[in-house]
Amino acid sequence: MAKKTILVTGGAGFVGSHLCERLLRDGNRVICLDNMFTGVRTNVAHLEPNPEFTVIEHDVVVPWKSPEKLDQIYNLACPAAPGHYQYDPISTMKTAVIGVLNMLELAREHGARILQASTSEVYGDPDVHPQVESYRGNVNPIGPRACYDEGKRAGETLMFDYNRMYKTEIRVIRIFNTYGPRMHPYDGRVVSNFIRQAIKEQPITIYGDGTQTRSFQYVDDLVEGAVRMMNNDVGFLGPVNLGNPDEFTMNHLADLVLALSGSTSPIIHLDLPADDPTRRRPDNSLANKMLDGWKPKVPLREGLQKTIAYFKSIDFTSF
Amino acid sequence: MAKKTILVTGGAGFVGSHLCERLLRDGNRVICLDNMFTGVRTNVAHLEPNPEFTVIEHDVVVPWKSPEKLDQIYNLACPAAPGHYQYDPISTMKTAVIGVLNMLELAREHGARILQASTSEVYGDPDVHPQVESYRGNVNPIGPRACYDEGKRAGETLMFDYNRMYKTEIRVIRIFNTYGPRMHPYDGRVVSNFIRQAIKEQPITIYGDGTQTRSFQYVDDLVEGAVRMMNNDVGFLGPVNLGNPDEFTMNHLADLVLALSGSTSPIIHLDLPADDPTRRRPDNSLANKMLDGWKPKVPLREGLQKTIAYFKSIDFTSF
Ligand SMILES: NC(=O)c1ccc[n+]([C@@H]2O[C@H](COP(=O)([O-])OP(=O)(O)OC[C@H]3O[C@@H](n4cnc5c(N)ncnc54)[C@H](O)[C@@H]3O)[C@@H](O)[C@H]2O)c1
Ligand SMILES: NC(=O)c1ccc[n+]([C@@H]2O[C@H](COP(=O)([O-])OP(=O)(O)OC[C@H]3O[C@@H](n4cnc5c(N)ncnc54)[C@H](O)[C@@H]3O)[C@@H](O)[C@H]2O)c1
Ligand SMILES: O=c1ccn([C@@H]2O[C@H](COP(=O)(O)OP(=O)(O)O)[C@@H](O)[C@H]2O)c(=O)[nH]1
Ligand SMILES: O=c1ccn([C@@H]2O[C@H](COP(=O)(O)OP(=O)(O)O)[C@@H](O)[C@H]2O)c(=O)[nH]1
Ligand SMILES: O=c1ccn([C@@H]2O[C@H](COP(=O)(O)OP(=O)(O)O)[C@@H](O)[C@H]2O)c(=O)[nH]1
Ligand SMILES: O=c1ccn([C@@H]2O[C@H](COP(=O)(O)OP(=O)(O)O)[C@@H](O)[C@H]2O)c(=O)[nH]1
Repeated sequence: MAKKTILVTGGAGFVGSHLCERLLRDGNRVICLDNMFTGVRTNVAHLEPNPEFTVIEHDVVVPWKSPEKLDQIYNLACPAAPGHYQYDPISTMKTAVIGVLNMLELAREHGARILQASTSEVYGDPDVHPQVESYRGNVNPIGPRACYDEGKRAGETLMFDYNRMYKTEIRVIRIFNTYGPRMHPYDGRVVSNFIRQAIKEQPITIYGDGTQTRSFQYVDDLVEGAVRMMNNDVGFLGPVNLGNPDEFTMNHLADLVLALSGSTSPIIHLDLPADDPTRRRPDNSLANKMLDGWKPKVPLREGLQKTIAYFKSIDFTSF
Repeated sequence: MAKKTILVTGGAGFVGSHLCERLLRDGNRVICLDNMFTGVRTNVAHLEPNPEFTVIEHDVVVPWKSPEKLDQIYNLACPAAPGHYQYDPISTMKTAVIGVLNMLELAREHGARILQASTSEVYGDPDVHPQVESYRGNVNPIGPRACYDEGKRAGETLMFDYNRMYKTEIRVIRIFNTYGPRMHPYDGRVVSNFIRQAIKEQPITIYGDGTQTRSFQYVDDLVEGAVRMMNNDVGFLGPVNLGNPDEFTMNHLADLVLALSGSTSPIIHLDLPADDPTRRRPDNSLANKMLDGWKPKVPLREGLQKTIAYFKSIDFTSF
């Protein structure tokens, strides 16, 4: 593929840093725009020597002018973990709505294609299983997760309205639970909590009875799907689910993490948070059909091993 | 009740003008803030001689400082008819989200209580009937109605997050189809279309087969409910449905309008718009219980007569 100039918002975050890496490896010029709210500069430190890579600290809620002509925008800027997005819910809503608006204006100005990182959270606590893209969801608009769920839904609306009004080239992906190296060790998500707890020989905290399920996607599979989605030239706008269909209970995940990390941490049960989805699993048929046979390749066991190795390599006190 | 200083955004619109009138009648000072997008100054012309009434032209998407200390804010600013809110969907989303944000900031600054005019559209095309407040809805986030539906959902989220974060005194009402004098004659809504068409002896345009249902609330009943909700001092935040539970098909409505207006217009059928809800009817139990026995009093026949009289009195060419 021809070299492109690509903006990655949220590029210093967990997914964003892997995406920047991949896009550079493919020979592109990459600008990472991030306000470092949940991202850390060390996530992209290894990329900074590359002259094709630039990091700019900026909040997407504030309009931004690009110094360079942009071909593509991946809009990932947004806290993603419940503990992070609930820290300042009003700010989350602003990022999810005004941030998207600003990036859509930028895309329009540059005639750039823009991909929005939406989420399986648009389905809320789903009563259709597995989730297909046409399912309209079960989101509580006034609950503690709403700042994120409703914000991301409104973000999708804006994407499609820009496409309808201005023919902006949009792509929308709905990301299901994703994990891997460079997850924030204190983001409160289940994979980072369990691995950190296991390594530190602290109790593994299962919320509720642990029978709720999630399907965990290794970050490399997501990045592959996102790049394919951005570059599909058949005019497929999405939304498209990107997730791993292998469904696990939190009890099963806890056992796996304990086994793979060789930990003897005890398991304890804490209260289930409000509006915690009971089950979640993507229907991947659309991605598989439209994105050249895409499907996740990395099994949970293998991905967890890589993530555990990363967590063992970092200094928790620096976060 | 003691005299209060009350801001009504969207006060020059259909519902807003009736609300301003009612609040003035109750002895309050009323500031009407409106950008005249779908409202018209003539809607409140009869109130302008009252020294307790002020009209200010301003767009709620732009932050606003009040020259006077505010006690209450009714946030009604938002196009409400599908034809109006789909005219510039991006601007609708901005009004629905950034407008609410700005008014919440104003409420916080003044320690004022704020009531948000949400909508039965948060239920989308409902698969629970009648709709109770706990129902999470069936909204298509990427469809042509989403700018309004998702915008209003996000508005509710912001209201509750301000309450959780800053203890802002919020009230949220979900308004079901409301009609009456001062509806915009070209808003494209079914009541205004049918009455205008009947008066002009033009064809009555039923979309689809006309078996879809709505429940029509006369504006005075809504205003009474809204004022009760605002002034409930038991800390009832809502959301609460305000609507008339008498459900009618569009076929039935057409017949009624023809009969009451003495028109001989023919009935024609046009295509049903995308995402048009099939049924809609409020469950009013919560409003009835929490708002001092509130229930709609004006039957459709009586309300239509008043509305027809209003439409006969106006000059259509001035809109
Ligand atoms: N990881 C997942 O499981 C998952 C699931 C669904 C969706 N997503 C979406 O993918 C994207 C990336 O998620 P992640 O897991 O890498 O999370 P992350 O928190 O590691 O990354 C988000 C990045 O965005 C930055 N950011 C936040 N608000 C910003 C703002 N206003 N301006 C500029 N930068 C801002 C943060 O500093 C961070 O670097 C998010 O949009 C998220 O909603 C992730
Ligand atoms: N009438 C109904 O059936 C119904 C149903 C559900 C909800 N609602 C809600 O009630 C409120 C009033 O609706 P209505 O039927 O009177 O509609 P309307 O269009 O007559 O009134 C809306 C008013 O808001 C003003 N406005 C719009 N955008 C604005 C902006 N950005 N800044 C300032 N003013 C702005 C318009 O000029 C207009 O005067 C709306 O919030 C609507 O969503 C109405
Ligand atoms: O320490 C933890 C953190 C999370 N969870 C549960 O793991 C699941 C996934 O939570 P996470 O926050 O990772 O993501 P999300 O709920 O957004 O899918 C949810 O059922 C949580 O209740 C858990 O049991 N222990
Ligand atoms: O994340 C991925 C990456 C690849 N593939 C599929 O796996 C096969 C091999 O892909 P790879 O990237 O290894 O080589 P490519 O086929 O792209 O040259 C192809 O059929 C891809 O469609 C996949 O399903 N998920
Ligand atoms: O000229 C019209 C306008 C509307 N409708 C139908 O009337 C119902 C109510 O439409 P309206 O736009 O008044 O409100 P909403 O759909 O928002 O409830 C919908 O089923 C419309 O398809 C109709 O049959 N003829
Ligand atoms: O829009 C209204 C106004 C009043 N009421 C009820 O109708 C009765 C008479 O109300 P009105 O305003 O006529 O007199 P009020 O009881 O307020 O003095 C009371 O039980 C109210 O609760 C109602 O259901 N809807």
